[in-house]
Amino acid sequence: MSKLLDDVVGELSKLPGIGRRTALRLAIHMLRMEREDVSEMTAAIDAFRNNIRYCRQCNNLSDDELCPVCADSDRDRSVVCVVEQVSDVISIENTRQYKGLYHVLGGVISPMQGIGPSDLKIDLLLDNIAKGEIKEVILAISTTVEGETTQFYITRRLEGCEGVKVSTIARGIGFGDEIEYADELTIAHAIHNRTNVK
Amino acid sequence: MSKLLDDVVGELSKLPGIGRRTALRLAIHMLRMEREDVSEMTAAIDAFRNNIRYCRQCNNLSDDELCPVCADSDRDRSVVCVVEQVSDVISIENTRQYKGLYHVLGGVISPMQGIGPSDLKIDLLLDNIAKGEIKEVILAISTTVEGETTQFYITRRLEGCEGVKVSTIARGIGFGDEIEYADELTIAHAIHNRTNVK
Repeated sequence: MSKLLDDVVGELSKLPGIGRRTALRLAIHMLRMEREDVSEMTAAIDAFRNNIRYCRQCNNLSDDELCPVCADSDRDRSVVCVVEQVSDVISIENTRQYKGLYHVLGGVISPMQGIGPSDLKIDLLLDNIAKGEIKEVILAISTTVEGETTQFYITRRLEGCEGVKVSTIARGIGFGDEIEYADELTIAHAIHNRTNVK
Repeated sequence: MSKLLDDVVGELSKLPGIGRRTALRLAIHMLRMEREDVSEMTAAIDAFRNNIRYCRQCNNLSDDELCPVCADSDRDRSVVCVVEQVSDVISIENTRQYKGLYHVLGGVISPMQGIGPSDLKIDLLLDNIAKGEIKEVILAISTTVEGETTQFYITRRLEGCEGVKVSTIARGIGFGDEIEYADELTIAHAIHNRTNVK
């Protein structure tokens, strides 16, 4: 095989979910793209990897010291939504319903993977709360074993914060999901936490 | 969202099979990679896109005027295997069974997509045959409508080539495939072209 092709296939197949076959398909596709479009793509990747920062207030990905959400004076600074990762911020922003701030933990507590509370941005969250503006903390963390552990740990740490409400996002059957295919725990929880309609 | 992140997600999601969600996952993964590894990847992509050439003899992807197969003096120059695309060359090379040369058409005849015979490297194949060294042409083209059309067209063009055998690869039930799930045409063909074992 051509060395140039072999190199690009080798590099692309290091990415998660991309095997050698997909890498080859991507490489061949790039030959059909304009050279300028390919260099725009590689330049965007390099600029991202070399210049991206973490917001000093919420740990979200950011171009500057403060991320666009923290820098936006229209956001409600009394509510903070705590999430595991940057992609959760994007998912919640896409709903266009939430107007508060975020706090990105950067993972969940996972002894199996050697991630302890000190590896997450929990102290930063408490520092922010100590400033006094925050009145509610919404925990939007996965319901995995690691997520539940993290939620439990954060709830304990927040116990001393007077005048700060702590909530978790609602659990239940998703819109469009069929009850038949939901797991027992979710169904049981959804029935227990039923909403009155009349 | 951060502009740097938005840019990289936008660029990556232009690639086939990569949506915005996958692009975001790839971008986040790149943050966990070393900066040098990311620049090695982008450099490999740029080098590939800007420097790759097509072999002047067989139209395979190549670093030089001749591709590694055509340049290899150990290959059997009396046999040429005609394939649609570069990835087919790689698939056949991976078997380590074929020792002849290749000829990459660069597609198949497809009136629907506006691809006619003149868009494929068929004249180059005939020029190569005219040099007199080639004794057999193996057609390894898909059994789609477009592939069959292309095969029919090439076979017609080769009719005038005296002393050149033309064959197509065997069709039948693949190793590991179950007869139950094979289509009727393949089963019928496999029975008709049965091989004696005793």
